[in-house]
Amino acid sequence: MKRIITVTREFGSGGRELAKRLAEKTGYKYYDKQVIGDLISNFGGGKELINNEEQAENYDFPYLISRSFSFYPTYQKQATEQLVLEQKVIKELAEKGDCIFVGMGSDLILREFNPFNIFVYADLNSKIQRCRQKGESGENLTDREIKRQIKNIDRARQRHYLLLGSDDWGKKENYHLCINTSNLVIKSLLPALEGFINTFFEENE
Amino acid sequence: MKRIITVTREFGSGGRELAKRLAEKTGYKYYDKQVIGDLISNFGGGKELINNEEQAENYDFPYLISRSFSFYPTYQKQATEQLVLEQKVIKELAEKGDCIFVGMGSDLILREFNPFNIFVYADLNSKIQRCRQKGESGENLTDREIKRQIKNIDRARQRHYLLLGSDDWGKKENYHLCINTSNLVIKSLLPALEGFINTFFEENE
Repeated sequence: MKRIITVTREFGSGGRELAKRLAEKTGYKYYDKQVIGDLISNFGGGKELINNEEQAENYDFPYLISRSFSFYPTYQKQATEQLVLEQKVIKELAEKGDCIFVGMGSDLILREFNPFNIFVYADLNSKIQRCRQKGESGENLTDREIKRQIKNIDRARQRHYLLLGSDDWGKKENYHLCINTSNLVIKSLLPALEGFINTFFEENE
Repeated sequence: MKRIITVTREFGSGGRELAKRLAEKTGYKYYDKQVIGDLISNFGGGKELINNEEQAENYDFPYLISRSFSFYPTYQKQATEQLVLEQKVIKELAEKGDCIFVGMGSDLILREFNPFNIFVYADLNSKIQRCRQKGESGENLTDREIKRQIKNIDRARQRHYLLLGSDDWGKKENYHLCINTSNLVIKSLLPALEGFINTFFEENE
């Protein structure tokens, strides 16, 4: 059985770093929307992948088509096509071997693969601090601006989940492990996390 | 710094077993409502501890006193006294050294001790199966009866939280780690869990 791990995370919680480090430690392939976007661009002759996850809030969902009809035919169609393409690519990659996916609703898309699903979260102060550390130097955002950014991006992630037919983004029942990274150094979590994952796969194989 | 661990759990998720095994593995003292009740009985000359956690739904909360006034003065007073006593004992025990508390709202009561808070949960089928395994032989409860039992006990635990001033029972934000035990053997989780706990305390000391 392929070992598939998905990492869903709140913006600023360090979930992406955790996933990247986990991929380095385990030797599993690492995929996020950037990597998948590049793959699609290369396969599709320069076809650009819409940043579904972060831009989901900017386009209309099927149940909202009464609003802005004029907008619907082009952008909505393009977004839907790309969502379908993204799901196809994610499934194909999961078929190939052990790997880790960050975001993109991969836990939903890969349900049939029985992945180990992680949710990473933190308190607001920790997330603000982490955003500040990771931000471009000289960005000089206020706490309020960072808060707004965190809220908007997480909301967009929830909407991306809605597009995939679930309103359960962040509900612990959908994950095998929920990790609160407040005041923790991400790197320090790796040995224990790897232990959990190995236990899960050994018990489920 | 004392190392305090609290385990809050859904009924049937194996949280108590996890806590007991963790106590054996780490050598930390183990406290649940049974142990605390016995301690209070011994100290208080046979004073019985009301099973606050499981019986919370059977008595009236301050905001419900318009209902069953006749019932209020004795039972409510007794319950409130015991809740106060229980909190006092829990804090005194936490002062003494490294320990693990199961339930009783210990994560709320011990906030100032900066404990490592775990929430243990599982899907309904796993919980039913675990209840069946742990039940008295010849009990012969139907799935429906077990489901009702699970629901009632978890609801009582939520109400016990309400008595302590929080309506956040089971909300992942209140815990450092949420563990889904569906289809897992509890014992197998110990090494990784111990790793997480050690990481947390090392980073926070």
